Amino acid sequence: MTVTVVGIGLIGGSMAIALKEKGIATKVIGVDANAGHQQKALDLGLVDEVLDLETAVKVSDLIILSVPVNALLLLVNTVLDNVDRQVMMDAGSTKSGLLDVIKDHPKRGRFVATHPMWGTEYSGPEAAVRGAFTGKATVICNKEESDEDAVALVENIYRQLGMHLVYMNAVDHDVHVAYVSHISHITSFALANTVLEKEKEEEAIFELASGGFESTVRLAKSNPAMWVPIFKENRENVLDVLNEHISQLRKFKACLEKENYEYLQDLIVNANGIKKIIK
Amino acid sequence: MTVTVVGIGLIGGSMAIALKEKGIATKVIGVDANAGHQQKALDLGLVDEVLDLETAVKVSDLIILSVPVNALLLLVNTVLDNVDRQVMMDAGSTKSGLLDVIKDHPKRGRFVATHPMWGTEYSGPEAAVRGAFTGKATVICNKEESDEDAVALVENIYRQLGMHLVYMNAVDHDVHVAYVSHISHITSFALANTVLEKEKEEEAIFELASGGFESTVRLAKSNPAMWVPIFKENRENVLDVLNEHISQLRKFKACLEKENYEYLQDLIVNANGIKKIIK
Repeated sequence: MTVTVVGIGLIGGSMAIALKEKGIATKVIGVDANAGHQQKALDLGLVDEVLDLETAVKVSDLIILSVPVNALLLLVNTVLDNVDRQVMMDAGSTKSGLLDVIKDHPKRGRFVATHPMWGTEYSGPEAAVRGAFTGKATVICNKEESDEDAVALVENIYRQLGMHLVYMNAVDHDVHVAYVSHISHITSFALANTVLEKEKEEEAIFELASGGFESTVRLAKSNPAMWVPIFKENRENVLDVLNEHISQLRKFKACLEKENYEYLQDLIVNANGIKKIIK
Repeated sequence: MTVTVVGIGLIGGSMAIALKEKGIATKVIGVDANAGHQQKALDLGLVDEVLDLETAVKVSDLIILSVPVNALLLLVNTVLDNVDRQVMMDAGSTKSGLLDVIKDHPKRGRFVATHPMWGTEYSGPEAAVRGAFTGKATVICNKEESDEDAVALVENIYRQLGMHLVYMNAVDHDVHVAYVSHISHITSFALANTVLEKEKEEEAIFELASGGFESTVRLAKSNPAMWVPIFKENRENVLDVLNEHISQLRKFKACLEKENYEYLQDLIVNANGIKKIIK
């Protein structure tokens, strides 16, 4: 089938590689607002050709929207307008606002809302990698609002990519990703800023940085063009989790201030419970 | 030479492996208060024999103290009392308190304060791994308080392990590690507690956890027996960094509350500055 990837960056580019490799796409068309990304996607062989959005949609069987969530909100109705028999899917990190925006569109059924749970802190076509999605979960939201054939096609594709399917409504999805993805990015950005602030006084601060620091701070390299729109879209959930996280940090602070090391021990033992989740 | 490792866990065990492998130690003697760890260290071949501390010190050329920092503070003077020509070194995560405790000991010169900047979230003899220290930094604190021959021996060993030497006074060391190690552990513990708290309501919360979450939360598996004493010893520095970190998080919170997405963008762009440090 012919697949159009709108937004040929980390996710769209990695998806293009996987669809070609699995023989799912015989042709991949790239659409991107950024001329530099268009050329790079061609040079890297991520896409077979670059077309404008309207032309690309017409000749495609599947359209994958992998643009930042703000662009997605602006784009999704226009693409739906041009769709007929085609299937459309997205790969966005937030879902409630998106599905609200299209809920009364006459072609709503052609759209399948998905969120493959994979990413890195890098962005752009050069960030695309082989084997990106294998073994990870992908969420399909509000399945019942999509046409059966459209859902079946998308499910089949994700299964061929080696992904595990999770079904969730958009509201629950947005709460869950605030906890297991969005807050990790905020703590990482804030930790980077904490240490960079100190570096202004003390040049040698990073000389001792090792694996543990790198692990907690690597997400701080993530692209603001992707993350500001995510935080904006999922603002209320992210605020809830951020408030909870600050209050958890305050417990550690209180333990140290009051020299209550028994409670500090309890907090750490509780945190160790993450072992049952993260092997 | 004959080396005694006091505390045959993650660090001591990995050190024993490396010293044997590089031909630095012809014999490794293990000392450990935990009988289970003694047996495990023998079973895993980390040590050649297990002795009591006093006997081990007598027959050794080098004694490595790799116990939690609270145990280190209790132990270090006793070991120094038994030392004559031998060299002693530690591998502890905090230094000011330790060096205060021994500063007037007549054998102070035999002791070299070191902190190899490597670790994982695991502990005990089973956590010991090969090639643990290669390519990492190691700190030597207050070098001028140690005998020249003792420093030379320790430097030579760390160089043979493939480590890069950094010299620092104990006070600066403790500030720096609060920034590049201790705070990472607190954020990770607190993040784990944040998410585990929510899990009580929503079972499926972890179904969507992927690499980014795992990366920021993996340190939350770390052993409280090691970390409570570190936070206690480095309390004031950790509190300073924790206060700064909470205030950085509050900036993200304020951006979201006030919907100030330009400032949010600025905060993230600033955090991206970590790219120049962490490749």
